[in-house]
Parts: sequence; C-alpha cells; structure tokens
Amino acid sequence: MTRSEALDYGAENCSIAASLGVLGEKWTLLVLRDAFNGVRRFEDLYDRIGAPRQVLSARLARLVDEGVLRRVPYREPGQRQRYEYRLTEKGLDLYPILVALMRWGDKWAAEPLGPPVTLHHRDCGAHVDLVLQCEDGHQLAGAREVRPRPGPSARLKVS
Amino acid sequence: MTRSEALDYGAENCSIAASLGVLGEKWTLLVLRDAFNGVRRFEDLYDRIGAPRQVLSARLARLVDEGVLRRVPYREPGQRQRYEYRLTEKGLDLYPILVALMRWGDKWAAEPLGPPVTLHHRDCGAHVDLVLQCEDGHQLAGAREVRPRPGPSARLKVS
Repeated sequence: MTRSEALDYGAENCSIAASLGVLGEKWTLLVLRDAFNGVRRFEDLYDRIGAPRQVLSARLARLVDEGVLRRVPYREPGQRQRYEYRLTEKGLDLYPILVALMRWGDKWAAEPLGPPVTLHHRDCGAHVDLVLQCEDGHQLAGAREVRPRPGPSARLKVS
Repeated sequence: MTRSEALDYGAENCSIAASLGVLGEKWTLLVLRDAFNGVRRFEDLYDRIGAPRQVLSARLARLVDEGVLRRVPYREPGQRQRYEYRLTEKGLDLYPILVALMRWGDKWAAEPLGPPVTLHHRDCGAHVDLVLQCEDGHQLAGAREVRPRPGPSARLKVS
C-alpha cells in the first residue's frame, strides 16, 4: 500500500470539518430537513424530531447564530407573538448535503416498499438526483474517479 | 403561509434520519473523510482527527458493525499484527455526502486563499462538483426547483 498523500497536509482548515462544526449533530440535520420541508414552528419541529425541548431550542439558537436560519415573528389570533424559523441563503445552500444523506439512506437503510419521499423537478416532474460531474461535462461514477489535489490554502504539515 | 404537507406524514422511516443514525456525529464523518483520503491506520487517524482514542476506537467499531468499513490485517516488520480500515461498497457510496459537506464549507467557511483541497476528474483533470439534475437532464439551481412527493413507503400520520 502506498502512503496516503493526505498525511503530508494538515487537516486544521478542512472544509468538511468546518461544515461539521455547524452541522455535526443529528438533531441539527433533522431540523434542517424539516426546514426544507416547510416545517418552521417550534411545536411542529418538536413533534416531528423527537429531541428534548431544551436540545431543540439550543440547536435552533445555534443555527440562527450561524446564519443558517433566521427568526421571523408571527402571531396566531389570541396568542402571544412567536417565531418561525426560515432558511437563509446560507441555509438553502445546505440542500445537497440533505439530498446526499437521503439518497444514501434510500439505498442502504431501504424500506421494502421503496423510499418514503421522492424528489421531482418542479418544472418537468422527472426524478431528481445528485450527480458527480466535472466541468467538462463528464459524469463520474464515484470516488475512485476523483483525484483530490492540494488547493490554494493547503498547508504542509511541519513534522 | 400555507401549512407544510410534510406535517401530514410520519418521520419515523425518514431516509435522512436513517443515514444520521449511522453518521450523525462529527468524528464519524471525519473518519470517513480520511478513509476516502487513503488514511487507514488507527495511529494516522488519531493524529489527524483529534478525537480521544476511546472515542475514535468506538466510532471505528461502529462503522465496521454497520458495514461501512472493513478491517484488513497488516503487519509491519518486527511488530504485532494490526488492522487498517477500508471502505466497503456501502462506505464508498457515502462519497456524495462528503463532497456536499466539503463544498458547503468551501463556500461558507472559506479560507481567504481558497479551498484547502480541490477535486478533479481523474481522466481529464477538470474540476469536479455535485450537481442537482433530473432524469430528463435539466440542471437545477437548488431546493426551490425541487418538489418532494410522498414515496411508496410514506406513512400518513394518525392524529
């Protein structure tokens, strides 16, 4: 086996680790799933997600602090003002992560009947999927066809 | 605001939640990142990831149990037999999740110089990215162009 070239570089500024700094937690990702489904109110999120109230509350606050969700006030007749949580642009950009998680679960934790949700192009109705593609338009089957290279902010390890 | 249709369905068999049951944890995803980088030995993973040894060990055992990694024995001269961890087919299928996490981090936790790693098509060298595409070949800009529909295993909530 050849030694991995990754071992020559530091992992301190890894973009995956940076994403996980915000998202590396099950409840957080389930909140985002529901935000994409249009579920925006604390009580609805609480019913669906199954996290303890304090945990859900802390995760929502964190996502607002990170600029992934924003709080929008609303008031039901006869009730006090409450807030709903909506995705910001930064939050909307998380969509491919959720689709990738969904597609893996569809395949590897598959229900016998098929997936609980399918995704369709709003315009034409055809099934939507994530595709690994290069700028020259070639479609790639997976990781084995990709070569990672040190980018502009790569830092060699000092050993 | 219209009430989300998602509220009519149960979330018990959600494919995203199923994936997170395996992956919903920062160290786990960093282990997988390194597995895709060819970093396969405990000591190397330990140096790069920064998780406590027991935690790293537990995460590796979990990923082996789930069939995402497999243990392959090796022996360095004069040392006892050890194991390295390699991705199975189920593990290799996680690649889009990691690319999606990486691309979000590249954009939203960006280093001033640019990303630490770039991905290239092994054959032609062009940049690789994840693309949201429908079966009719249309490229989608994001979540707003996708309509989720109840799939074959969708379960209406009994309320």
